[in-house]
Amino acid sequence: MDFPADLNRLMTRVERGIDLHLPPADTRPARLHTAMRYSLAAGGKRLRPVLTLAAAELFGVTDDAALPAAVAIECLHTYSLIHDDLPCMDNDDLRRGRPTAHRAFDEATALLAGDALLTHAFALLANAYADRPTVAQMLVAEFGDAAGSRRLIGGQMEDLLAEKKADATAEELDFIHLNKTAAMIEAALVAGGLVGGASEAHLSDLRRAGRHLGLAFQIMDDVLDATAESAVLGKTAGKDAKADKTTYVKLHGIENSRRIGRELSTAARDALHSLPGDHQFLEQLMDYLAARGK
Amino acid sequence: MDFPADLNRLMTRVERGIDLHLPPADTRPARLHTAMRYSLAAGGKRLRPVLTLAAAELFGVTDDAALPAAVAIECLHTYSLIHDDLPCMDNDDLRRGRPTAHRAFDEATALLAGDALLTHAFALLANAYADRPTVAQMLVAEFGDAAGSRRLIGGQMEDLLAEKKADATAEELDFIHLNKTAAMIEAALVAGGLVGGASEAHLSDLRRAGRHLGLAFQIMDDVLDATAESAVLGKTAGKDAKADKTTYVKLHGIENSRRIGRELSTAARDALHSLPGDHQFLEQLMDYLAARGK
Repeated sequence: MDFPADLNRLMTRVERGIDLHLPPADTRPARLHTAMRYSLAAGGKRLRPVLTLAAAELFGVTDDAALPAAVAIECLHTYSLIHDDLPCMDNDDLRRGRPTAHRAFDEATALLAGDALLTHAFALLANAYADRPTVAQMLVAEFGDAAGSRRLIGGQMEDLLAEKKADATAEELDFIHLNKTAAMIEAALVAGGLVGGASEAHLSDLRRAGRHLGLAFQIMDDVLDATAESAVLGKTAGKDAKADKTTYVKLHGIENSRRIGRELSTAARDALHSLPGDHQFLEQLMDYLAARGK
Repeated sequence: MDFPADLNRLMTRVERGIDLHLPPADTRPARLHTAMRYSLAAGGKRLRPVLTLAAAELFGVTDDAALPAAVAIECLHTYSLIHDDLPCMDNDDLRRGRPTAHRAFDEATALLAGDALLTHAFALLANAYADRPTVAQMLVAEFGDAAGSRRLIGGQMEDLLAEKKADATAEELDFIHLNKTAAMIEAALVAGGLVGGASEAHLSDLRRAGRHLGLAFQIMDDVLDATAESAVLGKTAGKDAKADKTTYVKLHGIENSRRIGRELSTAARDALHSLPGDHQFLEQLMDYLAARGK
């Protein structure tokens, strides 16, 4: 098995899925649909949809059955980035080197494009899995809870509140990471299992793996921000320290953060242990993500 | 049958449903959940959820089985109002006499509370109808399409674009009304039918009734704005003319608008004709809404 080739294969499927499962850019109103596709096209690692496809493959799903779920989670991730970038939130002008949606279009269009991607995620699940209503219902419940007020949005809210305070506590930082980052990574893996007809026990393993991986991913992000050159990072390094933002690195130091990140990455690999299928790609993906912070 | 008593009975059930099916205000993060409940509590006519409960009653659903669907559509309506009121959209300070969400809290909290209500609508459908997965799947598809980029959000986008032009055409105004207003009223009635196990033919009747009623409702709103006193209206009258906004009244005149509104209201009543159950409440509700513009 060739990890880069496998990753590339799954990423290519995700790109095709996005093109297939989003309304064409010239759908009326064209400005809205163009903005939706603009933000989705910004790309990146496609981590969440790749996890969905890879988890589904463990259960023998090698056709495109998991593709709508993968596209739906990327729609949710992209909507959250569009809204996070807005002036009333992080007020960012650039995302992955391109103007953010409200810079490329305008604030109202960006707001509506985010709303539309959020809504489309659920409509897509319900429509694409109409012939498997129980799978549709479980996917909507899973993504709805992960992206909801107790998790993704709740984590974002506490992140905003923490920025206004002098110091966030370790407990608050854990809440933010667990909900703002890990929730959607858990849901991505669980979604693959749901499409593949996984048992309760296997879904629980996938959820545990996602939780550990999500936390490891966020901690390594903090380490990277503190240590990497901007050129390597693809965005401005040292941004967190400059903003005096409470991060894992600020609370625990670089070496401790690296150690915790590695431990969580190992725990994520261990959680895969009793799952069926070939784990090699997911294990390598976890190593690859954890190695970013070294 | 006593129409005001019946309306009051259904509105009371909606209020109870909202309290029952939203996370408690002290759920972490409390600021977010408080903002969600604040905006939902602003109240109003509860037209959409009342339509859902009334449509379900036609099919013999007199218990609370349709209540989650009714609450979900009110969550969707409320999210769209919160986002419409934001500074980058209509920049309104007041909604039904109370400060809008971004005035009562702040812009970021209002944005996230809207996102959270939108997400909660779908999570609620999937969780509350988990034991009837086909109903859950059909409700998510129905609401997802009605609230999506081609309909509710698309209508909002074209409304914004129309405001920037000197004159919107009659065709553009129809697109806006059909999607910004009628889509969710259609979905409200169809949802009641879905919970009640309505046939395809009956769902199609409900959809047609909702479409006519939604257009009538919007036209009468334009007439009211042009003719009523602010005190009667509960908001500033003459706002549309002052903003030189293209409305039905501007394009067709007051008398023609009233006539079209009455015709649509009659068409909505006619669409109910072959549905089972007692139509009296829905017919009276349609007369009541159409009479607002007289």
